[in-house]
Amino acid sequence: MSRAFNFSPGPATLPEPVLQQAQAEMLDWHGVGASIVELSHRGPEFMQVAHETEADLRTLMAIPDDYAVLFLQGGATVQQALIALNFADPGQATDYVITGHWGKTALKQVTPYVHANLAADGEPGGFRDIPARNSWRLSDGAAYVHYTANETIHGVEFRSANGCDIPDVGDVPLFADFSSSIASEPLDISRFGVIYAGAQKNLGPVGVTVVIIRRDLLERAGQPRAGIFDYRAHLKGESMLNTPPTWNWYLLGLTVKWMLAEGGVAEFAQRNARKSALLYDTIDTSGGFYCNEVATAARSRMNVPFFLHDSALDAAFLQESTAAGLISLKGHRVLGGMRASIYNAMPEAGVQALASFMRDFQQRHG
Amino acid sequence: MSRAFNFSPGPATLPEPVLQQAQAEMLDWHGVGASIVELSHRGPEFMQVAHETEADLRTLMAIPDDYAVLFLQGGATVQQALIALNFADPGQATDYVITGHWGKTALKQVTPYVHANLAADGEPGGFRDIPARNSWRLSDGAAYVHYTANETIHGVEFRSANGCDIPDVGDVPLFADFSSSIASEPLDISRFGVIYAGAQKNLGPVGVTVVIIRRDLLERAGQPRAGIFDYRAHLKGESMLNTPPTWNWYLLGLTVKWMLAEGGVAEFAQRNARKSALLYDTIDTSGGFYCNEVATAARSRMNVPFFLHDSALDAAFLQESTAAGLISLKGHRVLGGMRASIYNAMPEAGVQALASFMRDFQQRHG
Repeated sequence: MSRAFNFSPGPATLPEPVLQQAQAEMLDWHGVGASIVELSHRGPEFMQVAHETEADLRTLMAIPDDYAVLFLQGGATVQQALIALNFADPGQATDYVITGHWGKTALKQVTPYVHANLAADGEPGGFRDIPARNSWRLSDGAAYVHYTANETIHGVEFRSANGCDIPDVGDVPLFADFSSSIASEPLDISRFGVIYAGAQKNLGPVGVTVVIIRRDLLERAGQPRAGIFDYRAHLKGESMLNTPPTWNWYLLGLTVKWMLAEGGVAEFAQRNARKSALLYDTIDTSGGFYCNEVATAARSRMNVPFFLHDSALDAAFLQESTAAGLISLKGHRVLGGMRASIYNAMPEAGVQALASFMRDFQQRHG
Repeated sequence: MSRAFNFSPGPATLPEPVLQQAQAEMLDWHGVGASIVELSHRGPEFMQVAHETEADLRTLMAIPDDYAVLFLQGGATVQQALIALNFADPGQATDYVITGHWGKTALKQVTPYVHANLAADGEPGGFRDIPARNSWRLSDGAAYVHYTANETIHGVEFRSANGCDIPDVGDVPLFADFSSSIASEPLDISRFGVIYAGAQKNLGPVGVTVVIIRRDLLERAGQPRAGIFDYRAHLKGESMLNTPPTWNWYLLGLTVKWMLAEGGVAEFAQRNARKSALLYDTIDTSGGFYCNEVATAARSRMNVPFFLHDSALDAAFLQESTAAGLISLKGHRVLGGMRASIYNAMPEAGVQALASFMRDFQQRHG
């Protein structure tokens, strides 16, 4: 088929101009006679890509100079282990705020290394809301407080609407998994100790992870660990302690340039607000044909999970939507139902097409 | 320019048909309306790619069923840390045979976790030979013996010619870094406990690492570690504990299919032998204009480092070779000089062109 509107939760749709440029350059990057994926990471060609990408990302996200930026392998999950190894003493208290599946994963990774205190837990409420800040039980002397800015499966996001867009935790460094909402709107980086994000949702391709670290934290001793697990060593090595995922880094760079050209995070914040509002409105005005049970103030702008009132219609919904060029709408196996992931690269036209399809499907099957 | 012959040490040249297929499929993989890099790793499309790639790699390398195959992130260096965490008790003895820069790196990664015994060390000899097997000082009760099958910087390889192609270490599991020579010739996998290799030299793209593990070793307790550092968990999760580097895995799959179509590892063994023989012959018959000081029996088939008798000619050699469409010949900064990396995807025509250029350059500057 021609290009579909692809609602995959990640790896996710990429900007078409980015794919077109990667395609055009696949056998010969900038006339050097080889693809960028074939060149040494230490050669002048890739070093240029690497440095430009960091500079562009710093511009896009307004990252202050006192923050280091790393481009690493391993996904968010590896960073979830490394933050404990690098920034906490063995057995030290760390505070975890759990608002969905990925927060639970983050906590699990550190249990061999630290005392992971469950400071707040949305699970008893079915992960349909953000636990109020005044209910959190933070530890004395915690190495950090960790939360997940957006939960892709449960569709729950820390938003200003719920009074908790960036939680205030005093002087304890705030660490956040921004895998599914990074660069989707302006963010005050200076509020954070560490931000990390797999790139495959809002920043481009799978296989590269961005880690943003307030530099003073790198003075912490942390725990015994291999050099390859040491953020200081990665910084000293310019994220090239070993061969980095060059092609993925390059595609991230193209994506960041595209975002800057489109107007930057302020522009994407508006697009993302309109896209999610349209979908939630379509759900909420369906008279119960579609439903989303997340508290309105905590609804994710990135992932809109929804259920058909009659799950017997799920198969027809998926089959007809795919035929209409709207793909990857099946919900995560943990929840079932449907999920529309609408990151930066999802055009507004794609969400409009989905909303139209949903109304049409309801008319035919309602 | 048109496609150059690219002697980059890794990331390295890829088969042109593989790049062409990736290019053709970049915006729409098999008519699904999206690139493979945009699709969920858990969807049927990528699962097909993943399973086919494993099956093809098992065929290509004749991997026995009692060996698990993982496709992971992090490069060889992360595996160098994980082998200690997964297969050795805290502080247990492990034996390291060092024949170059990367063997030293491997040893460094495990020092926080185990007692790393330097069983043999080629450094006093300038890493120009493989220490004879009968000189190795192996530990009692070692968790494993580790060596580096091919050293990319020093151009030293374990070969049958030096009586040490696969060292006999008795009942202790043999672990080997095959990053730069995997699938370059037939290999008896059953002689090994663990083989690991970054794919970016002989198996395709950067950003994905193949780990081949004798399954019984996975019963070892190892050391306290995060789940994401646990090979058993990766196996149970089919290398998808978290989002894998799907595009890199896909490109690896295309490369393996290309190798099978070309005749498999037996065919590449012949090509690689001819390619390296031609370059060493060109060097050895240059009357000292070019030199390579590695012991003949230990010379690498994959990386041919060489020096011009007069280093003042280095700049001219690099400038003229690049102009002739022979790129990335600059040696590693540790050694200087030149290096031709001639992995599976380097055509024989490329090596013939380089040998001609070298003779021509000598005539003009000799």
